[in-house]
Amino acid sequence: MKEGKTEQCQFFMQRAIELAETHMMAMDGGPFGAVIVRDGKIVAEGWNKVTSSNDPTAHAEIVAIRRAGRTLKNFDLSDCELFSSCEPCPMCLAAAYWAGIRKITYGTDRNDAEAHGFNDAFIYQELCKDISRRQMVMIQLMRSEALAGFKRWDQFEEKTRY
Amino acid sequence: MKEGKTEQCQFFMQRAIELAETHMMAMDGGPFGAVIVRDGKIVAEGWNKVTSSNDPTAHAEIVAIRRAGRTLKNFDLSDCELFSSCEPCPMCLAAAYWAGIRKITYGTDRNDAEAHGFNDAFIYQELCKDISRRQMVMIQLMRSEALAGFKRWDQFEEKTRY
Repeated sequence: MKEGKTEQCQFFMQRAIELAETHMMAMDGGPFGAVIVRDGKIVAEGWNKVTSSNDPTAHAEIVAIRRAGRTLKNFDLSDCELFSSCEPCPMCLAAAYWAGIRKITYGTDRNDAEAHGFNDAFIYQELCKDISRRQMVMIQLMRSEALAGFKRWDQFEEKTRY
Repeated sequence: MKEGKTEQCQFFMQRAIELAETHMMAMDGGPFGAVIVRDGKIVAEGWNKVTSSNDPTAHAEIVAIRRAGRTLKNFDLSDCELFSSCEPCPMCLAAAYWAGIRKITYGTDRNDAEAHGFNDAFIYQELCKDISRRQMVMIQLMRSEALAGFKRWDQFEEKTRY
């Protein structure tokens, strides 16, 4: 039984790796692929489309998560797993948290990505610094005006939480 | 001159706050709005659409960045600034880094968001932990097979870097 599970995981990872390669060769974007799995079946596939779609957010995992949400008609993917050809960057990892995903299987890691020209490791470092020490200039403005929106949200009875 | 610049920033922030409120009331999603500005003009607007579009990644900043890329026909937004009604969550902040954005102005912060029911601060904490200490289960598998994709990328002459 355990062995069957391992083989299944290898099958899904193999598919993520295939997607990375196929769509890189098709010039869709960088060499990254991902699949979302529920109940032992692939419910969505994604691959990097940053350069072909002029969308800096179109990483394989983001594309797969968006498709899974649309297919399952649910923004809560807590019954799903993510398989990605590479360790998710902070954008994609945070997206997995927002989606409620609890398990990620990945091939290469952030240092492999960095060694091949991608900024994953740098962005992880930046996000974990104090705001004042980042390369990104970040300025807070009009907090009290913006807070009013949160207060209205609290009182908004029709809201859907996520 | 300096005063004019401050007023301009307040104008863009006001717009981000308005988008947050208008689209929360329209039940598009949570109370978050964002605008992308280039050369003193708004080139894209975004608001949270997570619950209405079943897209866990449809935060205001992601929506605005995607629209800006499409409008400007460029995945490189390094000549743009981001204004957001709330400090970007790790997903949105990393997206800004990937887009090449260098300056972010924000209203409320991650702790305000957390106090009103959003997981921003928790996800920041998780991302900065060692993989083994996160709530997210993360397993590495088939690294050598996945590495082959990076090697092919290195050799792929037609590639567009990002």
